[in-house]
Formats: sequence, structure tokens, C-alpha cells
Amino acid sequence: MKSIYAFDEVLDIVNSSINEIKYTHNPITLFEPITYILSLGGKRVRPALALMSYNLYREDVRRVIPVALAIEVFHNFTLLHDDLMDRAAIRRGKPTVHIKWNDNTAVLSGDAMLIEAYKEIAKVDPAYLSPVIKLFSETATEICCGQQLDMEFEKRMDVTIPEYIEMIRLKTAVLLACSLKEGAIMADASEADADNLYEFGIDIGLGFQLKDDLLDVYGNSENFGKKIGGDILCNKKTYLLISALENDSVKRDLISWIDRESFQESEKIEAVTAIYNKLGLRQKSENLIQDYYLKAIACLDKVNIEQERKSELYKLAENLTSRIS
Amino acid sequence: MKSIYAFDEVLDIVNSSINEIKYTHNPITLFEPITYILSLGGKRVRPALALMSYNLYREDVRRVIPVALAIEVFHNFTLLHDDLMDRAAIRRGKPTVHIKWNDNTAVLSGDAMLIEAYKEIAKVDPAYLSPVIKLFSETATEICCGQQLDMEFEKRMDVTIPEYIEMIRLKTAVLLACSLKEGAIMADASEADADNLYEFGIDIGLGFQLKDDLLDVYGNSENFGKKIGGDILCNKKTYLLISALENDSVKRDLISWIDRESFQESEKIEAVTAIYNKLGLRQKSENLIQDYYLKAIACLDKVNIEQERKSELYKLAENLTSRIS
Repeated sequence: MKSIYAFDEVLDIVNSSINEIKYTHNPITLFEPITYILSLGGKRVRPALALMSYNLYREDVRRVIPVALAIEVFHNFTLLHDDLMDRAAIRRGKPTVHIKWNDNTAVLSGDAMLIEAYKEIAKVDPAYLSPVIKLFSETATEICCGQQLDMEFEKRMDVTIPEYIEMIRLKTAVLLACSLKEGAIMADASEADADNLYEFGIDIGLGFQLKDDLLDVYGNSENFGKKIGGDILCNKKTYLLISALENDSVKRDLISWIDRESFQESEKIEAVTAIYNKLGLRQKSENLIQDYYLKAIACLDKVNIEQERKSELYKLAENLTSRIS
Repeated sequence: MKSIYAFDEVLDIVNSSINEIKYTHNPITLFEPITYILSLGGKRVRPALALMSYNLYREDVRRVIPVALAIEVFHNFTLLHDDLMDRAAIRRGKPTVHIKWNDNTAVLSGDAMLIEAYKEIAKVDPAYLSPVIKLFSETATEICCGQQLDMEFEKRMDVTIPEYIEMIRLKTAVLLACSLKEGAIMADASEADADNLYEFGIDIGLGFQLKDDLLDVYGNSENFGKKIGGDILCNKKTYLLISALENDSVKRDLISWIDRESFQESEKIEAVTAIYNKLGLRQKSENLIQDYYLKAIACLDKVNIEQERKSELYKLAENLTSRIS
């Protein structure tokens, strides 16, 4: 019987591998921002998922490291370019790359970072490179599509819930799903298992993002690590806002807050939160997250391996969707 | 004896393959700019080189198409992002992507385009994918380094000729060299041949870029397809300008033109061209191009295959370095 790593053990392997990445290529000015954004940390849940999925079948989890690192480097590349496009000033409590350096550096170092992601993935066992890179690139395209939709939603007031779910599926969920499926591919899992793990990833990804939206309003800023109400202040089309806008009784009031250009931040956050409360959107959102959690569990149940080996993934699904940070 | 394709035949195969690329993925707004920039044409010399190099050894040149397309898509991706960073308004006589759309579209469609390049390359025979993608990514990184140096040179007045040659090696020459070497790899050429073809590519690439700098000043705008004097107007650190700045007798005069904020375009172009003429820089530059041409030929001579099979590459080397357009 092969041993199963606990989530924290997997995370230790991932973190030490990420810390070993050194960009010493000249001109150093191109690579400093890459080192910088990778040093800001993050949950590292995507690379961990790749190792955990592989570990369902095999023990030598380091074989997945190239794919896991590629996914984490790619994820951070998307943050770098998204922050530029969204004109975000802060990422994980620190200045974003285009603020700390400038726009051109953000563009070009981001490009170099995307190439570095592909360099990592090219280190996998050549026998697996073709399917592994195919899934990675398809996923990368979907994530660009998600960001494009997200930006288009900014200008629209008629975004529907299904459109929103599709956007977060593309922008967030597919990379978690990809991580799991890559681990399965590297472990020679059956296609059915790989697909069930992928679907499991989609569902926890959707739950994860909905939870993120919820924490932005109802979280505790100390646990959450971000200022509460940020989405409300920038009129971000989240599940909460879209749901509220679908409700005629509050729509006019909400739009007046969205259109208002000068306001007290706390006043706007309180007013919009009060609308969400009145409509019971916190509970509605929690229910939807629970639905996705249950769908995720059902997919994981179908993965054809002893329940015991899946215990860490069951726990992780619960943690990601019921987290407070 | 396997047949050798003429350059124009290779170009036909390349062009028809590029025309078959269709991006129909949603959201179409993300892919329109990619289709647009690819439709603007260009010499397509890079993909042609990959097929020609392969064709030295083998006849079934379509086997190289995935790599050739990846290189052409990648090249156009670099133009898209470089134009954004350089705030260039016109590319091949048409508005650049960030002008026709906007900056964010240029960033994100560019990212999607880089991923498309990797999707093309992933279509090669899986047995060759690992070395082919490794060279491609290393080259891609070098091109980012070249663009970074180019941007850094804008702020410097003390750029040396060796620094300039290194910058154009990275920004321009390595992709031509990579194209040739990829063809050699796919054809199972010897390492020595692959390396000689790579060096041949570097030398024609350097000659090609130096010729481009020269045509920007001394070309005929109808043949060249661009307005003459563009580099002079934007103070671009070319071989000509750097050489002139090294000359104390004209340095002060030149710097006064560089620093001047209001001037008649034609007056500045004439004045700077007169300085170049006085220093004999046109001939000096032609001599250097000739040196690189001869070095290129010496590399091609060493490629261990009948001279006759190399005739199209000899011709191309001459055309690229002695061209008027």
C-alpha cells in the first residue's frame, strides 16, 4: 500500500520547490518582477492539488513537480497581467508590479513569466509531455477568455447568473480542475477518473470563488487578508451584486450607488450590504456554495480508488468552500 | 534523391497553412485582434526558414508546419506587445491593436496569442516535442530579453556597438536561428549541422536587422513600405546613431537634435542623415552587413550536405542582406 501525503506535507514539497526557482538570467530587470510576485506567497492550492491527485495512485509525487510549478507560475502570471488590466494597486498586501515598476515592465515580465511556465512544464517526463501540455494550453486559453468576460461584464448591467458562473468557471475553476487532471494524467489514471477529478475541481473552484465573493462582504478583514467591501466599492459584478440587480425592488437604489462618484466608502459598503441582507443573499449564496460542494463530493465519490486514499481531497474540498480566509 | 523546394514554393505552403488558422473560440473579442495582426502579412521568412532547413534533409516538409506556425504566431505576438510598449500607432500600414482596440485588449489578446503559439507547437510529432519546445522557449525568453534591452537603450546615450549587436541578436536574430535549428531537429540532422544552421541564422539575422536600420534612412519609402526617417525622428538607438554618437566631432550637434522637442520632421531627418553621410556610416554599415553575410555563408558551407541542396538558402541569405525592401 502506497503512502498518502497529508495536505500540509504536499504543501511543504510544493513550497520548497517554488523557493528553489531562481531567475538569474540577464537583464535582471526583466526577471526581478517575476521573483517578486512569486515571493508574495498565496495558498499554493493549485500545485498542491496536482500532487494530491497524483498521490491517489502513486507515491513518487515529485514527478508532478514540473506541472505543479508550471501551474503556479502561470497562475501568478495571470495575476500580474490582470492587476495591470484592472489597474489594481495592491496584491497580497504589497504594491502590484505595474505600480512598483511600470506598465511596460508588467507587460514584458508577464510575457517572460508565461514562457517560464512553459519551461517548467517542458521538464516533465517526455512520454507525458504531449497530453500534459495540451491540457495546460487549453486551460490557459480558457483563463484568458474568463478575464476577457470579466472585463466585459464591467461595462454591462444585465449580466445574468449563468453568465457569471461561466465566467468564474473559466477564470478560476478550470485551473483547479486542470491541476487535478494533470496529476491524474501523470499517474496513468483511467480517463473516467481523470474526468471525475476534473469535474471535482470545477465544482470546488466555483464554490471557492463564490466563497471569495462572500468573504469580500461578510468576512473578517484580519482573516481574509483584504479590506472588506472592496468588490462593493468598485461595483464588481459578483454573484451578490448580479442577484441583487435582478430584483426590481432594489435595482434603482443599487444603481444609484453604482453611479455615484463621490461617497463615503463606509457608507456605500453599509448601504449595499444592507440591500444584500434584505434580499437574504448571504444565505442564498451559502446554499449555492453548499450545492457545489455536494456536487464536488459526488464526483470524488466516483473516482475509482479506496475512500481512504481520497480523505485528504475530501477534507480540502470542505476547507475551500467553508473557509473563513 | 529528394526534391528541393524553391523559396516561393515553401512560402506558398507556409502562407496557405497560416490562412487555414481560424480562431472561432468565444469570446470572439479576444481572438479578433489575433486574426487581425496575422492577416497583416509580413515576409513570413521565419516559418519558411524552418521548412527550408528541414528540406535540406527530407522532403515531407509539412511535418514542420506546427513549429513553423508556432514561430510565426509567436513573432506576431511579439509585434503586438512591442507595439503596445513602444506606443507605435502603425504596423504594416494599418493601426496597431492597442490603437484599433485598446491597451487591455492588446495585453490580453497578446497573451492568448502566445498560448496559441504553444498550441501550434504541441501539434508536432510527440517524439520531437521535448527538444523542439525547449529550443522554442529558450528563444522566446531571449526575445523578451532583447525587447527589455531595447527599451532600456531608449533612456541611455552611452550604448556601445557590442551592446547594440547583442540586443539585435536577442530581439531579431535568435528567432531566425531558432527556425532553422527547429527544422534541423525535426529532420534528425546531426548536432553539428543543427548548430551551423543556427549560427547561419544568427548571422543573417544580424545582417537583416542592420539592413533594416539602413533602409530606414537610405531606403525608398515605396519599396521599404514604411516612412523613411522614422528611426531618426524617434531617436532610435540604431547602429547608425550609436556609431555617430561615438564620434566627438558630431556628438554635440546630434544631441541637440535628439533633445529638440519642436522641429520640422524633414529638417531633422535631413540634418541627421547629413551627419551620417559625413561620417561615411552608410558604407561602414554596408561593410558590416557584408561581414555578417560572409560569416553566414561560411556557416552554411560547413553544413554537411550537398551544395546543391543548400542553393535556396544561399540565395535567401543574399536576398535578406542585400534587399531594398
